[in-house]
Amino acid sequence: MVIPSLIQHKRDGHALRPRDWAELIAAYTAGRVPDYQMSALLMAVYFHGLTPEELAALTDAMIASGDRLGFEGLGLPVADKHSTGGVGDKVSLLLAPMVASCGVAVPMMSGRGLGHTGGTLDKLEAIPGFRTGLTLREARAQIERIGCAMLGQSPEIAPADRKLYALRDVTATVESIPLIAASIMSKKLAEGLGGLVLDVKTGSGAFLPQPERAIALARTMIELGEARGCPTVALLTAMDRPLGRACGHTLEVEEAIEGLRGGGPTDLMEVTYALGVEMLTLVGAAGDAAEARERLLESVRSGRTLERFARVIEAQGGNPAVVEDPAILAQAGAVEVYRAPRGGVVSGVEPRRIGRAILELGGGRVTMEDRIDHTVGFVITVKPGDRVRRGDPIASIFARDADGVVTGETALREAITIGEEGRLLPLITHRIAAGGVAPVAAV
Amino acid sequence: MVIPSLIQHKRDGHALRPRDWAELIAAYTAGRVPDYQMSALLMAVYFHGLTPEELAALTDAMIASGDRLGFEGLGLPVADKHSTGGVGDKVSLLLAPMVASCGVAVPMMSGRGLGHTGGTLDKLEAIPGFRTGLTLREARAQIERIGCAMLGQSPEIAPADRKLYALRDVTATVESIPLIAASIMSKKLAEGLGGLVLDVKTGSGAFLPQPERAIALARTMIELGEARGCPTVALLTAMDRPLGRACGHTLEVEEAIEGLRGGGPTDLMEVTYALGVEMLTLVGAAGDAAEARERLLESVRSGRTLERFARVIEAQGGNPAVVEDPAILAQAGAVEVYRAPRGGVVSGVEPRRIGRAILELGGGRVTMEDRIDHTVGFVITVKPGDRVRRGDPIASIFARDADGVVTGETALREAITIGEEGRLLPLITHRIAAGGVAPVAAV
Repeated sequence: MVIPSLIQHKRDGHALRPRDWAELIAAYTAGRVPDYQMSALLMAVYFHGLTPEELAALTDAMIASGDRLGFEGLGLPVADKHSTGGVGDKVSLLLAPMVASCGVAVPMMSGRGLGHTGGTLDKLEAIPGFRTGLTLREARAQIERIGCAMLGQSPEIAPADRKLYALRDVTATVESIPLIAASIMSKKLAEGLGGLVLDVKTGSGAFLPQPERAIALARTMIELGEARGCPTVALLTAMDRPLGRACGHTLEVEEAIEGLRGGGPTDLMEVTYALGVEMLTLVGAAGDAAEARERLLESVRSGRTLERFARVIEAQGGNPAVVEDPAILAQAGAVEVYRAPRGGVVSGVEPRRIGRAILELGGGRVTMEDRIDHTVGFVITVKPGDRVRRGDPIASIFARDADGVVTGETALREAITIGEEGRLLPLITHRIAAGGVAPVAAV
Repeated sequence: MVIPSLIQHKRDGHALRPRDWAELIAAYTAGRVPDYQMSALLMAVYFHGLTPEELAALTDAMIASGDRLGFEGLGLPVADKHSTGGVGDKVSLLLAPMVASCGVAVPMMSGRGLGHTGGTLDKLEAIPGFRTGLTLREARAQIERIGCAMLGQSPEIAPADRKLYALRDVTATVESIPLIAASIMSKKLAEGLGGLVLDVKTGSGAFLPQPERAIALARTMIELGEARGCPTVALLTAMDRPLGRACGHTLEVEEAIEGLRGGGPTDLMEVTYALGVEMLTLVGAAGDAAEARERLLESVRSGRTLERFARVIEAQGGNPAVVEDPAILAQAGAVEVYRAPRGGVVSGVEPRRIGRAILELGGGRVTMEDRIDHTVGFVITVKPGDRVRRGDPIASIFARDADGVVTGETALREAITIGEEGRLLPLITHRIAAGGVAPVAAV
């Protein structure tokens, strides 16, 4: 295997052989291929894509670089969800205990925030003591006991992906459909799932803003999943504005708990239930969508979901009392109401600007090593299309201090635009399965 | 300057600002930008190219990364030649002393062989004791004394290029016209030349086999040179077969000396004189091409060129007696005649296969650190189009031992094809100057 020749071959638009991918990924994971060759190859892949055979080989090589979770003998169906990431997306926090309380095991393996999008792990760590770094052994034991674990990408799972992702992140090679698909699916397929639901975001705040690209990504992931014995379905959901109202780690945990207590913003709950319905039906835990939805609603209404969330928090070292009293979470040093600077119709609430503002407030990472302030963020109570009067309170800023409040105000002035009219994408536009793409009626 | 954003910008087909290039190259040279980011950027440049403004900024930044040679007060015009590289191309060995003996100073700064092409430095080092690692100070002193120095790319000249080239070589980003142009011209423009002649190869053994690409490279380099006050002309010459008969370091030195003694293969001498004519007329050392050619021929006939070469060799630590008796060079351990395996017309003598064979025989480098065996190689006495009978001696193999002879035979069987007919490119097809491209009558 002569690496420069492989790079050149790909650069010139040819496919590498499956065994080249296998050897290459094994050698890269073992540190025998330098980053500078891998990044050049990744950029060539960015331009030329991968054939289905190459993508399959890459994904398999990434899975083979580490261990797998296995749930033989568990006696429960196993399902998971993956989101391509957005701003205000705290769905995982609600969905994992919700689905688990309906009798489906959920080994929810999540990532950290990087760039403008938040990460589930960081949100969970807003709960004091919550430990996301479970070993696979711990995760399996916890799932056997309470049906759910919420953990970070274990170093044992697809270490090749961990290394490749870190490299892609600093070399502008993230936004490649086959590379995104391989990254996501190598981790999820190592989880030993009976079903996987993908929440693929579209709109200005999504990794892939154009719906066509989002659909292409979904189809690519579904093909990878189905070919490896994991039934996979995707919903295309809107990320042209934040999901829900809360953006920022602590604020999102509070909003998730609010949702599990029967409240929660409509859009957040709708996306959560829709994904939950898919998870339940995919693994046969419900006969049809209507039955699945009823079970999920009942699980929330009865308090079983909230209780399950408390058990997960407790099992992972956090204080379960938070589900009764979110105020025990550390709170921001300065809170300020933000008022509409003019009257009109909200024409946009730009997720990327909001995500970047959370970074500016200290609530995100520029490098993987950065420590983050969980308390900062925004609660934004308007959506595009809402009519506002000058001076109406339309958001709250949560910052470290008065300086941060000014930073937050500047961000909101840029992110929330007010004009003559506002449009927003339907919340869920398409359902994509092995059989094809189907539009979803507006909700 | 956020490097991933710059990479992304270029990746998406936008031009970077001149000051981005300046900062980036300075930071990379200083070790503040990692190779893995630079290689991803270079691959993006491979796909999108560079605008003229970007190319100018990159070249200037590369020049600015190091020192310059200056020849103020020398009282002689200064010219140099650059070749894009080929197999059997020993032109520099003849041309430098030839032009110097006509009263033009020649600071011939050359490279090492890498891949299938040989390097002038490696050829010179086949002469025992010859020291190519002159400092700029030594080179300048030698040029003042004897009008010519033949040296390696000093670490003081364009260190950015040295670092970038090493990276490009292992990341399949060499074959990019703007990157090649910036690499060549940054070094040449730092030499303080009054004129530069480019030998741009075309044909299967050239870096850029297609004539259109070779012409594009020539035009790009000419534009860079002329815009920086260095009159620049290019000749497009054939590299669909080796130049001359000898391929391999010692063998090429011997053939060069043969040429300076009034012999030498016609094709080699023709290319050498054509480039020499351009050098002399470019700096005004001859009124026209006819006068320039006559001066060069006379310089060889009179023995002045050979004497000048001997002085250069002596000045740089080599044994000048080699010009009288090339047999004092170390000789190969095993020599074998290669005979035509069938009768017919030579349809091809593939330079890349020959270049690769020299590598296989130990006469080249796979990495920059490899030591090379100067004695190995081939003397090939046929050209495409020549009619041969079965059993005719058509080449000689120079190897370390009997094993190497077998390797050499295999290579020649693959490189020298015999069929019904053979075609070869005209030796010099185009002359390219600031004014445009002109075809050259077949020679």
